[in-house]
Amino acid sequence: MSQAIFDGAEYERRIAETKARMRDHGLDALIVSDPANMNYLSGYDGWSFYVHQAVVVTLDRDEPVWVGRGQDANGARATAWLSEESIRSYSDDHVHSPYDLHPMDFLAGVLSDLDVDDGRLGVEMDAYYFTAKSYTRLRENLPEAEFDDATLLVNWVRVTKSERELALMEEAARISEEAMVAGLDAIEEGVAEYEAAAAIYDTLVRGTDDYGGDYPAIVPLMPSGDHTGTPHLTWTDRRFERGDPVIIELSGCRHRYHSPLARTTFVGDPPEKLARTAEVVVEGVNATLDAVEPGITAEEVEGAWREIIARHGVEKEERIGYSMGLGYPPDWGEHTVSLRPGDETVLEENMTFHVIPGIWQDDVGFELSETFRVTANGAETLADFPRKLFGA
Amino acid sequence: MSQAIFDGAEYERRIAETKARMRDHGLDALIVSDPANMNYLSGYDGWSFYVHQAVVVTLDRDEPVWVGRGQDANGARATAWLSEESIRSYSDDHVHSPYDLHPMDFLAGVLSDLDVDDGRLGVEMDAYYFTAKSYTRLRENLPEAEFDDATLLVNWVRVTKSERELALMEEAARISEEAMVAGLDAIEEGVAEYEAAAAIYDTLVRGTDDYGGDYPAIVPLMPSGDHTGTPHLTWTDRRFERGDPVIIELSGCRHRYHSPLARTTFVGDPPEKLARTAEVVVEGVNATLDAVEPGITAEEVEGAWREIIARHGVEKEERIGYSMGLGYPPDWGEHTVSLRPGDETVLEENMTFHVIPGIWQDDVGFELSETFRVTANGAETLADFPRKLFGA
Repeated sequence: MSQAIFDGAEYERRIAETKARMRDHGLDALIVSDPANMNYLSGYDGWSFYVHQAVVVTLDRDEPVWVGRGQDANGARATAWLSEESIRSYSDDHVHSPYDLHPMDFLAGVLSDLDVDDGRLGVEMDAYYFTAKSYTRLRENLPEAEFDDATLLVNWVRVTKSERELALMEEAARISEEAMVAGLDAIEEGVAEYEAAAAIYDTLVRGTDDYGGDYPAIVPLMPSGDHTGTPHLTWTDRRFERGDPVIIELSGCRHRYHSPLARTTFVGDPPEKLARTAEVVVEGVNATLDAVEPGITAEEVEGAWREIIARHGVEKEERIGYSMGLGYPPDWGEHTVSLRPGDETVLEENMTFHVIPGIWQDDVGFELSETFRVTANGAETLADFPRKLFGA
Repeated sequence: MSQAIFDGAEYERRIAETKARMRDHGLDALIVSDPANMNYLSGYDGWSFYVHQAVVVTLDRDEPVWVGRGQDANGARATAWLSEESIRSYSDDHVHSPYDLHPMDFLAGVLSDLDVDDGRLGVEMDAYYFTAKSYTRLRENLPEAEFDDATLLVNWVRVTKSERELALMEEAARISEEAMVAGLDAIEEGVAEYEAAAAIYDTLVRGTDDYGGDYPAIVPLMPSGDHTGTPHLTWTDRRFERGDPVIIELSGCRHRYHSPLARTTFVGDPPEKLARTAEVVVEGVNATLDAVEPGITAEEVEGAWREIIARHGVEKEERIGYSMGLGYPPDWGEHTVSLRPGDETVLEENMTFHVIPGIWQDDVGFELSETFRVTANGAETLADFPRKLFGA
């Protein structure tokens, strides 16, 4: 437990809530492959998700079991709260193996050892890194087992944050603010996109005077010019030109907890149309945040945004926000609650969302986002940053 | 094709070689989910792999088909060489859907439209981001189709690099050299690990005087102190102390092509034992590189390393290197050739490898790596960086 970020009571609560949901699903064991869920239950934090690994929760065991590559077992010892017998690792000939060995063969052996090989097993069918092969291979190895889709089971436990988690997200928000300043300061005519990205990255990792930053689960996104309509392209060698709108979406990260923030700037004098679009989006975001309170549904929150932009003659298909917090590449989103029509999840205190609406018109877009926490008194944004169109 | 990095002839060759392998496997269509393979065949480059997407190659069509989220279709138009009818996108209600919609439902429709829904379909069973759910859902949607495991089919086409690819890897190597200098310069007693990581990241993205850097597929890894035995932990708030060994593994990246480089430094005067270990590793790496020539097998190359360290009484279980180049998080490795016993792949000109051996003794480790290209005259390292134990 040398680096454990949370105290034992927090992990106990997480495991207890996970087991309660396992009982609801009639599961004897849960096999967790999503690195964020692995971290959430065990504390394990390493860049090893490029090989197969898992955390296994069984009903009859207090501790989950970490299963990974031999050379990562020391990383598990250093970061997870688990005792030695709960750390099981496979030999290196299982890695990208030419010997017809697969890490799931080893995992099957661990499940036998835990005496759940003929039980009902929950697997995260749609989680990153739980591949089709992982599934079919595990089934081949465990003909007596019954498999159940437990995608998002742990993610739903994660939706409501503890005070310690919220404190980490607040720390991440301080980093987000500083990185946004660095990005806005760097962007001007003639500067290359990668130079602005470097300034942002330097700040994201350097953090604040008091603590450093972790790598974010999504790289800073900075679509500019006619690429503001392509939200997920990354920076290039292009130099900013007068007349470029630039959207910056970034997140500070602290012990894998995020607090994303997006703003839009313009190189030169913004056209009147963009300035008006900005006003509509800011009005919409303010209305969205004002609507938040415990007891309201996710779709009702989205409705507040929809109503404002409809008044201005705009319709938008995409969801405008989602629950988030702990995350590894490729995503900081939790894939649970979305702020969109049809999502009837009732908001509770200490849920956290990234609301990121935008409007694109004639290929010129404006985007602005906030990360907020649901409190008894409504939405509380984690960052404190002006809501407006910036200029460079 | 506004941003196409390669000319049309290169994409034609890639598609032709992919189709030849498809014919060998009797496939009517290949569904590619690995973002590196998607990029390789289509040119598509965006941080959108956190939602389901694919590139589909059919035998009877010159162009592959890009399938992704609606808001990423503009990104495909901007980066891929495909015509409009080869870009197919699904509506946002498929994303983390509460409506029992899955992107594979849409993909199944595209496959029907391409008239291969009753054909033999290759899927990348063990590729990142092709989840168990993607597979079962696709099967449910296409009861007439036959499925075949085509994991690594495109990866094996990628093993031999074109001159243009090698030029990009050379550019990445220039960035790796500069970032390694930045890291070595930053590390000293009292400096926080995150400060060194920030200096490295800033250089990785800022690139050289001539061009910028892309985000690497793996973050800079910097295990230090007693964590040098935990190769995949990332930086912390800890400050470097006298007596710390620090391993830096990083890679510059240019248009998604990498050239990784690892070196070890020591804060203070290194103990005699570490200095001797360093000498053995350098001798072993030199011998490994000397052994490389077209026609030798991957396991024979590893044998050269094994022989040197055995002379010094050391044995090591892990593979010592792997084929690499194009990549997205979480990995720059290609998962094809490994330098290890049992891998009988014959090396050919213009294959590229990252050789990264290390020795750990009494929890103090030394690691040193090179990225090299196989030429008619032997191994040619892409970076030019002293092979020794550094000191801070």
